[in-house]
Amino acid sequence: MITTLRWTDGRLGFIDQTRLPAEEITVDTADYRVVCEAIRSLRIRGAPAIGVAAAFALVLAARASAARDGAGCRAAVAEASRALEATRPTAVNLFTALRRMERAAGRAGEGPAAALIAALEAEAKAIRDEDVASCRAIGERGAQLIAPGSSVLTHCNAGALATAGEGTALAVIAAAARQGKIVRAYVDETRPLLQGSRLTAWELVALGIETVLITDSTAATVLRRGDVHAVVVGADRIAANGDTANKVGTYPLAVLASRHGVPFYVAAPTTTIDPALPSGEAIPIEEREAAEVTDVAGVRIAARGVRVFAPAFDVTPAALIGAIITERGVARPPYAESIAGLAGSGDAA
Amino acid sequence: MITTLRWTDGRLGFIDQTRLPAEEITVDTADYRVVCEAIRSLRIRGAPAIGVAAAFALVLAARASAARDGAGCRAAVAEASRALEATRPTAVNLFTALRRMERAAGRAGEGPAAALIAALEAEAKAIRDEDVASCRAIGERGAQLIAPGSSVLTHCNAGALATAGEGTALAVIAAAARQGKIVRAYVDETRPLLQGSRLTAWELVALGIETVLITDSTAATVLRRGDVHAVVVGADRIAANGDTANKVGTYPLAVLASRHGVPFYVAAPTTTIDPALPSGEAIPIEEREAAEVTDVAGVRIAARGVRVFAPAFDVTPAALIGAIITERGVARPPYAESIAGLAGSGDAA
Repeated sequence: MITTLRWTDGRLGFIDQTRLPAEEITVDTADYRVVCEAIRSLRIRGAPAIGVAAAFALVLAARASAARDGAGCRAAVAEASRALEATRPTAVNLFTALRRMERAAGRAGEGPAAALIAALEAEAKAIRDEDVASCRAIGERGAQLIAPGSSVLTHCNAGALATAGEGTALAVIAAAARQGKIVRAYVDETRPLLQGSRLTAWELVALGIETVLITDSTAATVLRRGDVHAVVVGADRIAANGDTANKVGTYPLAVLASRHGVPFYVAAPTTTIDPALPSGEAIPIEEREAAEVTDVAGVRIAARGVRVFAPAFDVTPAALIGAIITERGVARPPYAESIAGLAGSGDAA
Repeated sequence: MITTLRWTDGRLGFIDQTRLPAEEITVDTADYRVVCEAIRSLRIRGAPAIGVAAAFALVLAARASAARDGAGCRAAVAEASRALEATRPTAVNLFTALRRMERAAGRAGEGPAAALIAALEAEAKAIRDEDVASCRAIGERGAQLIAPGSSVLTHCNAGALATAGEGTALAVIAAAARQGKIVRAYVDETRPLLQGSRLTAWELVALGIETVLITDSTAATVLRRGDVHAVVVGADRIAANGDTANKVGTYPLAVLASRHGVPFYVAAPTTTIDPALPSGEAIPIEEREAAEVTDVAGVRIAARGVRVFAPAFDVTPAALIGAIITERGVARPPYAESIAGLAGSGDAA
């Protein structure tokens, strides 16, 4: 399995996802600012992976702090936390992880820096290990929704590269494939940054699954032809009512799946749920740089003089979602109740 | 105005659209095979432009024929016609133009080659001039459907570059803009070949219209926000019942427009209508090379080991189309009747 994030001897190693699939390069750093930049530039991406990386980044900040007293070290961690918070606004896992780390720091009390560092490292590892376990549980629960002989469609990358484990949507597809249920996987290329063609296709080929790459606009044709039996995507933030923010292009996919009677599933750990938001309208949607649309592979392709509107995410209304697959269980409509039920079914975060 | 195709002294000049917007290069040729290659490689593209270019290509073939007798020259033209027919399967304008040229050749009778060449040249010019006039009429008729203060969305390129005149969908937008009705135009980039960002954006900026470029998947967000008041696209073939083949991505756009109550219009000359086809299911859909999806600007972006499904077009069912704007009038549902009415309203082709 691909290990996107690797914590070794006080250093965080991460695969630079902007270089895939042409080059598989692992960056190894002890500097939390390198992690901040990596999240901002999508070298590290995927809601769960961002959360885990941010947690380890705080450990790096604590270790690098010149202060050997707890208070000074805690101030360095707080500064790093603010920098990490400012990297990307939509995925809630980032904020969930930072809050958990803050609580762990608080529990470490007023002691020396070493105790704080140990507490933070233990918490970051726990966040990572829980994500690995979540991915496994999501895969197992989700595979039960896939009928034998299915072809599935996914968008963007919700695989091992997006998590500390084997992914969310791709964990479902991988688990179903291990059960012999998957005929082939269709992958939207996912403009503008092509996470589908660069990352998801790479993962699926490595998993030995027959993979068909399509442009995002071709998904409608594939759904209409009846060539797809389930759509499975990840999520960046899920509101209390089930409305789901995910990579731009997810919403039209859900509309088309609904039109053609194809079940549309969201796979995400419960850390992606933001119970504080009543609906998707309140989810902040990041806008990306114009160059991500106007240039490809460093080459300007678009005519000069245009403006660009480049939201990174869109919101799929809960009504279009057939199920939300989490590590604690599969939520079905009405989501306000089923999601609240999930929150109560495990240990409170 | 952009002149995509220029006939001068027995030579056809055409803008190489694969080089736009980086370079504006005109290719000048007396060889019909250069025109065949240009159509196949999308140097010349757009259903009406393909028809006009094919007509002139037959004149080139006749002029280049070594035979100075009518029969030999006619054989050369027939051979060229078969080569042109094999270039691209979906746009019906190509076949309509070739059939017209064949009838003109037939009318020229058994005389010397010079008479045949003159007849073919006159017919090709007539096809071109009718397309110019059609574009103008489509623009004027279509502009009446656009309310003042509108923002419009278009897909692919149905502009001057796609026709001999000022376009179909873009003629509507240009005419509405001249009437002061257009606030801004949103343009889908139109993967894989990016005719939206390369060609349509270039034309709209040249027309002085505020232009916002979006990825194809972002159209759903823009429609949902209520930022677009009409969608206007071109067509490659329209069946007798109004089902319309156009660039892949048109069908999902029509579904989304319908969902959000935004009128969806097709603009095309009546030469794009194929009354022989009862419905869109019978329209042959061209599949393009995998490299158009896996590579961008000459750079491999997709993971190795994937298959690609790359239909160039999709079919929008008539039920999603609010109006079909032609040079002879605006057809409204039910299209079986209104389209048949259009065919009867002008001189029979």
